[in-house]
Amino acid sequence: MPELRYNRLNDTWVIISKERAKRPHDYPLKTEDKKKENKENCPFEPGNEHMTPPEVYAIREPESEPNSPNWRVRIIPNKFPALRPDQTFYKTSEAIYDKIGGFGYHEVVIDTPDHEKHINNFDLEDFILMFTAYRDRMKQIYEDKNIYYVQVFKNHGREAGKSLYHSHSQLIAIPRLPKRISTQIKQARKYYIERERCLLCDEVKYELEEGVRIIHDNDFFTVYSPFASALPFEFRVIPKEHSHDFTDISDDMIYSLSEAVKTAVSKLSKLLKNPPFNMMLHTSPPIREIPSDPNYFYQIDKIFHWYFEFFPRMAIHAGFELGTEYFINPTPPEEAAKYLREV
Amino acid sequence: MPELRYNRLNDTWVIISKERAKRPHDYPLKTEDKKKENKENCPFEPGNEHMTPPEVYAIREPESEPNSPNWRVRIIPNKFPALRPDQTFYKTSEAIYDKIGGFGYHEVVIDTPDHEKHINNFDLEDFILMFTAYRDRMKQIYEDKNIYYVQVFKNHGREAGKSLYHSHSQLIAIPRLPKRISTQIKQARKYYIERERCLLCDEVKYELEEGVRIIHDNDFFTVYSPFASALPFEFRVIPKEHSHDFTDISDDMIYSLSEAVKTAVSKLSKLLKNPPFNMMLHTSPPIREIPSDPNYFYQIDKIFHWYFEFFPRMAIHAGFELGTEYFINPTPPEEAAKYLREV
Repeated sequence: MPELRYNRLNDTWVIISKERAKRPHDYPLKTEDKKKENKENCPFEPGNEHMTPPEVYAIREPESEPNSPNWRVRIIPNKFPALRPDQTFYKTSEAIYDKIGGFGYHEVVIDTPDHEKHINNFDLEDFILMFTAYRDRMKQIYEDKNIYYVQVFKNHGREAGKSLYHSHSQLIAIPRLPKRISTQIKQARKYYIERERCLLCDEVKYELEEGVRIIHDNDFFTVYSPFASALPFEFRVIPKEHSHDFTDISDDMIYSLSEAVKTAVSKLSKLLKNPPFNMMLHTSPPIREIPSDPNYFYQIDKIFHWYFEFFPRMAIHAGFELGTEYFINPTPPEEAAKYLREV
Repeated sequence: MPELRYNRLNDTWVIISKERAKRPHDYPLKTEDKKKENKENCPFEPGNEHMTPPEVYAIREPESEPNSPNWRVRIIPNKFPALRPDQTFYKTSEAIYDKIGGFGYHEVVIDTPDHEKHINNFDLEDFILMFTAYRDRMKQIYEDKNIYYVQVFKNHGREAGKSLYHSHSQLIAIPRLPKRISTQIKQARKYYIERERCLLCDEVKYELEEGVRIIHDNDFFTVYSPFASALPFEFRVIPKEHSHDFTDISDDMIYSLSEAVKTAVSKLSKLLKNPPFNMMLHTSPPIREIPSDPNYFYQIDKIFHWYFEFFPRMAIHAGFELGTEYFINPTPPEEAAKYLREV
């Protein structure tokens, strides 16, 4: 029988529709299509550094020059940015409407020099360097006090919104707290005030005891399907001990994170034949002034718990989801976790 | 230069990215694919009424029997419902989590007996009968006091989530207020308390004066691209005079609504070559008990303003949109409206 489940962190409800239950092979195959840009004309290829704006960060061989080959990870401004650092940061109105200048950063993380390597066949070292680049570049961007949040994400597969073939991630830095993060802060704070415990610490502890939604587990990280998963085969990679800010992550922890993500992504990729998915980082923003509430960030280090979220794109969000913000998930997370665990 | 725009009704921000500006022919063609179910085996075909659950509502020829042919619109329970009226309506917990029995209604509105007719080539009469069926069936479902909201929607094209070829709409009735509607009520109430005016009445009045975002206009309805459109070529069909509840609509108004929707949909279909889109009704819920706030529905008839929303699916929501609930729209609504107006 169908069931509505509450996602306390996002303050949303999800319909787990056992009636429409779908097992992995019930989904149409959505394998990453093989439309490749010509390697010679690929702007992300070593040797083609002149085809991109100058790099803002790179992990490269000692002594190698910026914007030359011999790099392992390279971060560049997006050629067609959604937001721009040189845009004036005005706040104004247009008659009855409010608007803000499109100030911000929009950067591309070229996470491998290899044209043919994608996250589903990354080596451990590829993950380590990618997460290191995320951490380091986020710290740099947060030095700009007008930036309230940096969203790090990776679109894998055309149906997940990827537009260039060569593997890459993106950073978009925005001059406001995104609604999803401010909702999470409010919800986690409400929980903390009642119990003096972190919402996600409690959830991780319960999931590890219960076990049915656990997919993988190592020294520092656990991978599980959330109780109120909105999407089939959705999962979360989260530090087991409380940690509010991804940018504080140590090199040891990056190693452990990389092992967990590599294992989970390769399980997903085997089970659903390299499906399209989005990977998103959720982490605490730095402390900034919020005009409507000067105490907004009070005890943010105790209430927020960072994690990476993986959204496979097996289902289409249609009129009901767009109209209500309720999601219908035809694969219960307990079943999704069992399939992924047993791959 | 890019610009952030505030959607006051939904309390969200949208990035209007002129940098990435896309005109109609810049979008990949997403024409409704022609994969058709065999007409003989189509459960929505006249003569195949036995292939569906018994009808709960129909507009049919006088004297014709229920579940026989000779109907114009037919509403049936979904064979694989996301929610079920026979499900116990429990509210309970599972250790640290909250859940509710999947009680509700999930119905299919077969809006035409014609296998080959779709909303982009509906006649005026098809629209009139479809909207009449929505109104009548919603009224019936709202007699169940456990139903807080009925979401009416239509998915046009596979990429908008349509799964059966034969044209149909859907009704999903849920035992809670959806988050999007409760946000809209809160936002509209805040606006009304400050000004004693309806938020959308003010918006419609301003848009009609300004004209740049107007697409079409008749006696009772106007069609416009919202200032903070989250999607390229998104538009809204809205009554010009204040009206909070779609189920109160008169037959005269249904005629005028049908003219407006027919005109707008045929413009969209010509401009973007029959693109996939979702159509959703936003309307005031009936007054129900809200445990956390007994005055929740105070003056709902003054603050809420119903409308139909159309979301063409030209862009994919990827990691940034899913992670932040911020949307990037590469076609400014003023340009979208101009293209649509001039078709």
